[in-house]
Amino acid sequence: MEKVKLKTNILKKEIINIFKKFGLNNNHALISTNALINAELVGAYGHGLSRLKMYCDRISKKVINPKPKIKIKKISQSISHIDANNSIGFVAADIAIKTAIHNAKKTGIGMVAVKNSGHYGLSGYYAEQAVKKNLITMIYTNAPPAVAPHGALKSLFGTNPICFGAPTGSKVPFILDTSISMINRGKIRVAARNNKKIPEGVALDKFGNPTTDAKKALEGVQLPIAGFRGSGLAWMVDILSGVLTGGNHAGKVKDPFNDFSGPQNIGHLFITFKANLFQKNYNQRIKENIKIIKRLPKISGVKEIMYPGQNKFKRFKENSKKEINIPKIIKKDLEILNS
Amino acid sequence: MEKVKLKTNILKKEIINIFKKFGLNNNHALISTNALINAELVGAYGHGLSRLKMYCDRISKKVINPKPKIKIKKISQSISHIDANNSIGFVAADIAIKTAIHNAKKTGIGMVAVKNSGHYGLSGYYAEQAVKKNLITMIYTNAPPAVAPHGALKSLFGTNPICFGAPTGSKVPFILDTSISMINRGKIRVAARNNKKIPEGVALDKFGNPTTDAKKALEGVQLPIAGFRGSGLAWMVDILSGVLTGGNHAGKVKDPFNDFSGPQNIGHLFITFKANLFQKNYNQRIKENIKIIKRLPKISGVKEIMYPGQNKFKRFKENSKKEINIPKIIKKDLEILNS
Repeated sequence: MEKVKLKTNILKKEIINIFKKFGLNNNHALISTNALINAELVGAYGHGLSRLKMYCDRISKKVINPKPKIKIKKISQSISHIDANNSIGFVAADIAIKTAIHNAKKTGIGMVAVKNSGHYGLSGYYAEQAVKKNLITMIYTNAPPAVAPHGALKSLFGTNPICFGAPTGSKVPFILDTSISMINRGKIRVAARNNKKIPEGVALDKFGNPTTDAKKALEGVQLPIAGFRGSGLAWMVDILSGVLTGGNHAGKVKDPFNDFSGPQNIGHLFITFKANLFQKNYNQRIKENIKIIKRLPKISGVKEIMYPGQNKFKRFKENSKKEINIPKIIKKDLEILNS
Repeated sequence: MEKVKLKTNILKKEIINIFKKFGLNNNHALISTNALINAELVGAYGHGLSRLKMYCDRISKKVINPKPKIKIKKISQSISHIDANNSIGFVAADIAIKTAIHNAKKTGIGMVAVKNSGHYGLSGYYAEQAVKKNLITMIYTNAPPAVAPHGALKSLFGTNPICFGAPTGSKVPFILDTSISMINRGKIRVAARNNKKIPEGVALDKFGNPTTDAKKALEGVQLPIAGFRGSGLAWMVDILSGVLTGGNHAGKVKDPFNDFSGPQNIGHLFITFKANLFQKNYNQRIKENIKIIKRLPKISGVKEIMYPGQNKFKRFKENSKKEINIPKIIKKDLEILNS
C-alpha cells in the first residue's frame, strides 16, 4: 500500500478546513479533527482518516447535522441526559465527557446518557480526559450490526466496546477499550480497503461459513469473544447505551458507510467517579497493584507485562514526534473533499 | 456420585442451625442459608453447599468473624462505604445491595464499596434484588488468584466476575453473571471433588501444560477468556473491587479453602441506578429489544435465543418444586457440622 508523509499541523489544518467546508463551526471542526488525528497517532487507523469521507458524505446527505442544537437536561447534580440532535458523534461525546467530569467533580459520581448521536471514534480518547482529572470512568456505546447474538444466524449487536479508564499515579493511564468481537470492525474495514486478509476464527461470511476475506466478513457475521459470555456483554452494552438512553437499539443503528436512509441515533453512556472516593491513598494503592503484577514471572519472549493503554500511549508518544503516514488513497480523499 | 434427596425446608433448618452453632446470629444465619440454598436451586453447585464446611472452618479458625461490627459510612446521598469487619461475605453483600438500592431510590444512582469482606457466592443473587426494584445494577468482586495476567506465568487475578442486571418488563430478569475465566473455579472444584474431568483449553497445570485433570488445574493456572482482553477485564475488576474499595488486591486475596493465615479481605463494588432515569417507557423499550432479538433466525438445533439469566431462572423454578439432591459426601459434612 503506497503511503505519503504529512506534517501533523498541516494535516490538521486541512481536516479542519474540510469540516468547516461541510458546515461545522470552528469549535466542532477542531473537536472532530483532534479525535481523528488522535486515532491516527495511536495507530487505530479504522477510527482515523479512513472515516473522514464517510462523515462528510453523511453531512451532505443530511444524516449528520452540522449545526446541531444540543440539549443538556440535568436530572440531578450527578446525572445528565444529552439529546445530541444528530450531531457528529465527536461533538456529542466531547460535551458528554465534559459534563460527566463536571458532575463527578461536584458530587463524587457523574452519569451522562446521550441519544441521537453518531459514531464518535475511540471510547478510550474520552476516557483519557476523565482519567486526567483523577476520575475512574466507564464508557459504553452501541454500533451497527456486526455480531450475531449467541444462537442466532444473523448479526444484530454492534462490536459494542466496553471501555474502562483508571488513574495509575503516573502519566500513562490504564485504558481498557475492548470491543466484544474477536476483532475490531474498523480493522476489517481497513483490511478490505487494502485487499488484505483477516485472521481465521474471527468472522463468518453471509452464508455462515468461516472466512479470512475481509470483504466477505463485512457482508457476513463477526464472532463475539467467548461465545455466550461475549454475546451477553454485547447485549449489556446495547441495553446501557441504547435501551436506557433513548438511542437506537436491537440492531437499528445504521451502518454509517452504506446506509444513508436516516441518522444513526447511536446512544452512549458515560459513568465517572473520583478514584479516591473510598481510599485517600488510591494513587499509592494502584501504583503498588501495577508494580506487583509487572514483577510476576513472564512467559518466555515477554519483556514486560503491560497494562491496557500502555502500548497505545507509547505509540502515541512515538508517532507524535514523526510525520503522519497516510495511504495515498486517503490523501486523495482529502484532496477531493478540500477541492 | 451418590446423591441423597432432602426437602428444602428441612435442609434450610439444618443449615441455619449449623451457622448458629458456629456463632452467627439468627438474621445472619438466615441470610447465609438463603444464599447457599439459592445457589443449589439455580444449579450453581460450586457456590452452594460444597462451600458450607469451608465457611465453618474459617469461623473456627477465627478468619471469618461470626459477630461482626459492620460500619456503614455515608459519603453522599448516593455513595456509601462499608467496612464488613471480616463478616461472612453473604452478610456484607446483603447489607451492601440493600444500601445501594436505598441510595438509588433516593437519588437515582447508588454506589456502595465494601472492604474486609469474604466470598459472597453468586453476584447474580444480589443483582436480582436490585432488578426487582426496577434498578439496573453492576456488581464487581475480586477473588483468590486463579488466572494469569496476559504475559505472566503465574496466577494472580481471581476469576473476578462481571455482573450486570437489568429489568426486562417481565418477572424473568436479565442477569449476566460471568467470570472472566474460561470456566468458573467453583465448577473445577466440584469436578475435583467428584473426580470428574474438566474441558480442554480452560486451564494449565502448575508447570504451564494444558490439563483436563481438575485437581491439577486447581494447582495450576486458569485461562482468561479472549487473551489480553479477558486479562484486561480481570484487571479492571481488581481495580474496582480491590484498589478502589480498600480490599485486598494484586493477588493478595487468600484462597478460602486452604489459606487460614488470615481473613480474605475481599472487596466488592455495587452500582445501581433507576432503569427509567432517561426514558419513562424503559419497560416497553426493553421488551421490544428482547422481542426483536428472539425473533432472529436461529442456528439449527437452537429452539430459542435466551438472554442471560433466563436459563437460571427456569432451573430455579423447576428445582424449587422438587426436593434438593445433594451428594452423599456433602450430606456427611452436614451431619458432622451439626453433631
